[in-house]
Amino acid sequence: MKIGIIGFGAIGFDVAKKLDKETDIFNVIGVHSRTKNKIIDKTSSFNSPLRYFSLDEICKKSDVIIDCAPKEAFKEIIQKCFDCKTKLITVSGAGILENQEIINKAREYSTQIFLASGAIIGLDGLSAVSEGKVDYVKMITRKPPNALIKAKFVVENKIKLENLNEPKLIFSDNALEGAKAFPANVNVAAAVGLAGVGAKKTQLEIWADPTITKNTHTILVKSDSSNFKIEIENIQSVENPGTGKITALSVVATLRGMISSLKVGT
Amino acid sequence: MKIGIIGFGAIGFDVAKKLDKETDIFNVIGVHSRTKNKIIDKTSSFNSPLRYFSLDEICKKSDVIIDCAPKEAFKEIIQKCFDCKTKLITVSGAGILENQEIINKAREYSTQIFLASGAIIGLDGLSAVSEGKVDYVKMITRKPPNALIKAKFVVENKIKLENLNEPKLIFSDNALEGAKAFPANVNVAAAVGLAGVGAKKTQLEIWADPTITKNTHTILVKSDSSNFKIEIENIQSVENPGTGKITALSVVATLRGMISSLKVGT
Repeated sequence: MKIGIIGFGAIGFDVAKKLDKETDIFNVIGVHSRTKNKIIDKTSSFNSPLRYFSLDEICKKSDVIIDCAPKEAFKEIIQKCFDCKTKLITVSGAGILENQEIINKAREYSTQIFLASGAIIGLDGLSAVSEGKVDYVKMITRKPPNALIKAKFVVENKIKLENLNEPKLIFSDNALEGAKAFPANVNVAAAVGLAGVGAKKTQLEIWADPTITKNTHTILVKSDSSNFKIEIENIQSVENPGTGKITALSVVATLRGMISSLKVGT
Repeated sequence: MKIGIIGFGAIGFDVAKKLDKETDIFNVIGVHSRTKNKIIDKTSSFNSPLRYFSLDEICKKSDVIIDCAPKEAFKEIIQKCFDCKTKLITVSGAGILENQEIINKAREYSTQIFLASGAIIGLDGLSAVSEGKVDYVKMITRKPPNALIKAKFVVENKIKLENLNEPKLIFSDNALEGAKAFPANVNVAAAVGLAGVGAKKTQLEIWADPTITKNTHTILVKSDSSNFKIEIENIQSVENPGTGKITALSVVATLRGMISSLKVGT
């Protein structure tokens, strides 16, 4: 299976580095990125240094594209993948949420989009219970105040986060509204929505919490088959503190599941 | 995609009933079960009543087999699937754990085995963090004392569970030993092991807990990318109190992920 990577920031590079350790399993043919020249430099110490391809070329030559590009590029990338019947792995829950017509389009073009779990976990459980009756899905995000201070919603609503002594609830609505108000939270909220009952029916609370130093997400689910609670605390990636290390790993795990003889998990 | 079901107990029947509601999406061609005659009776009210096939026939005619048979049949089923290059969805983590050579064999035969999450969730997260460095995976199972009183380990070790006033730790070892000692817990322990660091490195505690009425599992993970905690409480299926309703739903979700234009989750 020929693999192409689009986007070579913190996630794309991390994915490439991981895949390069198993060149017998993963056949990465190259990268498309806006910073063309950096690809050769950045991969010069790889077992298999990576080539640059144009967007057209990489979609044509690959069986599966790993999309690690900014959200703005999502629509163009997915259309190219459709045209070439190339499968797409992405963490851009936001891209999917904003362009839901692509789900039907992927069917028409006989291809498949894989939304990796990214910075969240338990989407397997959400998918499973959503085959039955779900009473509620609630996501609670807690971030240190300094991680929220520049958020659009906080600025526009003049919410004071300086010198907080205790956790402060700053947003409580559905995940669709939450994704708009807190762009940094959008992929997680979108993924939880898409895996479960939809972003509009997914409740979201955002807390500025001076008692913590890492971003955390809690998901609470009540359904007719299972009640569960997930708490996750992600460790920042070295290259980009805004991205958790687990995001690139979830992409690699998704790819492995596609080609492994044993795929574990729903 | 032609779907065949093997085994028509609580899980197989629940899966069939769910798939029958979407005959435009899921093309179930029939069932193999030891209780041949019951299939027609049990599915007479279906939109599309199901036919009986022999094991040979169903593996030959299907593109994907859903294995809902007892563990004892696993090895025979998987070999037939290999011979016919038929994909297999199973919840038999135990079957895979006891026959790990099948993972290489599936590769040789160019087919794929899908282990659905079954009674557990968060295998997406476990798969992702296991692409990095995992410090530990610990599973804690809590069951009401009466759900454990007949367990092999409890009987053989003459552990007294009558009149407990508080939770009692009755087992603490790795998940491989736990799977042997507590056969009713084996699929969950095996799945957590297979998704993560292996059953031997997965710690398992089993508690008899008089303060609860439902079986619960907690999974604790510490890794270099993410720390997380999962707590799940499953609701029994109507047909068989030993099986949670989520198990059949996770099989349907796995199947949907295989054929959907959008597959959400690692």
